[in-house]
Amino acid sequence: MDRMGEFELLARIRERLPASGPRTHLGSGDDAAVSVPGGATATSVDALVDGVHFRRELASPAQIGHKALATALSDLAAMGAEAGEAYVALGLPPDFGEEECLELLDGMVALAIATGTELAGGDLSRADRLFLAITVVGHGPTPDSFVARAGAQPGDALVLTGEIGAAAAGLELLNSQNPEMGALVERQLEPTPRLAAGRALARDGATAMIDVSDGLGADAGHLAEASGVALRIDGEAVPMADGVAEIAAAIGRGALDLAAGGGEDYELLATIPPKRLAQTADAVNEAEGCALTKIGEVIAGSGVEIRLPGGRLLEPGGFDQLA
Amino acid sequence: MDRMGEFELLARIRERLPASGPRTHLGSGDDAAVSVPGGATATSVDALVDGVHFRRELASPAQIGHKALATALSDLAAMGAEAGEAYVALGLPPDFGEEECLELLDGMVALAIATGTELAGGDLSRADRLFLAITVVGHGPTPDSFVARAGAQPGDALVLTGEIGAAAAGLELLNSQNPEMGALVERQLEPTPRLAAGRALARDGATAMIDVSDGLGADAGHLAEASGVALRIDGEAVPMADGVAEIAAAIGRGALDLAAGGGEDYELLATIPPKRLAQTADAVNEAEGCALTKIGEVIAGSGVEIRLPGGRLLEPGGFDQLA
Repeated sequence: MDRMGEFELLARIRERLPASGPRTHLGSGDDAAVSVPGGATATSVDALVDGVHFRRELASPAQIGHKALATALSDLAAMGAEAGEAYVALGLPPDFGEEECLELLDGMVALAIATGTELAGGDLSRADRLFLAITVVGHGPTPDSFVARAGAQPGDALVLTGEIGAAAAGLELLNSQNPEMGALVERQLEPTPRLAAGRALARDGATAMIDVSDGLGADAGHLAEASGVALRIDGEAVPMADGVAEIAAAIGRGALDLAAGGGEDYELLATIPPKRLAQTADAVNEAEGCALTKIGEVIAGSGVEIRLPGGRLLEPGGFDQLA
Repeated sequence: MDRMGEFELLARIRERLPASGPRTHLGSGDDAAVSVPGGATATSVDALVDGVHFRRELASPAQIGHKALATALSDLAAMGAEAGEAYVALGLPPDFGEEECLELLDGMVALAIATGTELAGGDLSRADRLFLAITVVGHGPTPDSFVARAGAQPGDALVLTGEIGAAAAGLELLNSQNPEMGALVERQLEPTPRLAAGRALARDGATAMIDVSDGLGADAGHLAEASGVALRIDGEAVPMADGVAEIAAAIGRGALDLAAGGGEDYELLATIPPKRLAQTADAVNEAEGCALTKIGEVIAGSGVEIRLPGGRLLEPGGFDQLA
């Protein structure tokens, strides 16, 4: 965008931002935002592009803003970090007007307030298609307070927050001829980063953690590879969101296939010593209001097995063939 | 890009990255990068889009990578921060292949190594046009160790590092029928963030500072507005890069018009008590190998005046009319 347009839009954006948080000494509008981290930081960046990660014709500007920040914060949740600051780069196409830009920001600000995240800086550019690149900084007292993907030990329980499949089923609904807006579509368009659950898991001794963004099968594979272990998942134990089985049946796929292959649920997949399971499930339920379910276990070896009813086994990458 | 392609490219990218720096406990490849800041942080984000901030037909992938990181680091230089970590989101169009992506990264890595910056994380996406969004984190012992745009006091000297006009003249050359590659074009395509000069200015008592990215006139205006002062610039004192006058004459513009309106020089514009001027100029020269020139002064009031030979005065926004 031209410079004067950018400056004016930036001024309007700044008016909508809540006051600076406790860590920030200098917010948006200078060359850089200044803050004083309390201890260690966890930083992650996510890029979202129209037509790749979302489609403007299927989501409101506010939903696009919400989802972009949510997916970035989900990475902090998967570290067990406390949400801190977000820095937002926007590429704005000519047909995405100032009002739409402010709506997008409103969606982002609402989630920022709900999660205690400060929008501390940003940059605007012209672009052919809408894109968002969001860098989030999370905080913890020490580097060891964060939970990496590596660290799972044979004998640990494999646990999952909430339920999966809703986002993939919601996407199927959105892509259908007559999409009905409902809980499944909402899970696709407005995912919740599991920040409180992530902190509870980190406090209670999770040995490894990842967020389910690429799909349970793929993300379990990442965790197994980083930890140098194998994961055995009991397919029947995987908690499925209401309505997923019906959508899967309607399109001729298995519910677990749709759920494990689809991704974007932004639930947390973690490993934890079995003796801590009950206590951690209580802590997650209290902090986040969702269940923590044991869906499998960590064993020596490599790769991911999903045991299906009838004793059938599936390797990662096999999800596409799952019926 | 499809997920397998992304994972493979990420693996190839990670191979090229230098080992983690002293602050980073967990680098690229987990949900987030973990580091322990030493005191206060300064964080800035910049988005660059093909056709807006650079043109693929005029710059090599390595130059694009260099310039994107350089412009982001320039914001840290303008805070007087020590370069720390960079987080890079790339949008890759179908005709920008894996080799070009790795070349782009090589250009970025070379500057990262030269400036002590760690490429600590990133994200890749498909896109219609190449874009880069770079978040950089700089460090300092305390929030007060950074220099904001606000803080200039009437009576302060207005100083500028290096020389301006080269980037704008280089762009004119690039846009001409038969561009000759030379120092001016290099300044346009491969700017140097003045990190060492920025730290020297911060140490020696700069009261306000900004990098010259939008043009001397516009950026002086930002500094004046943030500080609540007026800036009086002596047009004849502004140091002009070699060759700028010739390019300006060839296109029928004044040298100061081209230089002050064109931007992208990434020199630092700062205010400093006059008694510290000589010492700071020595420190900048020693640290960065460039001059620090007094180009004007801070006075009470608002706005920016540029005094031209003959006593003519120009207000900000008047640069477009400058002959």
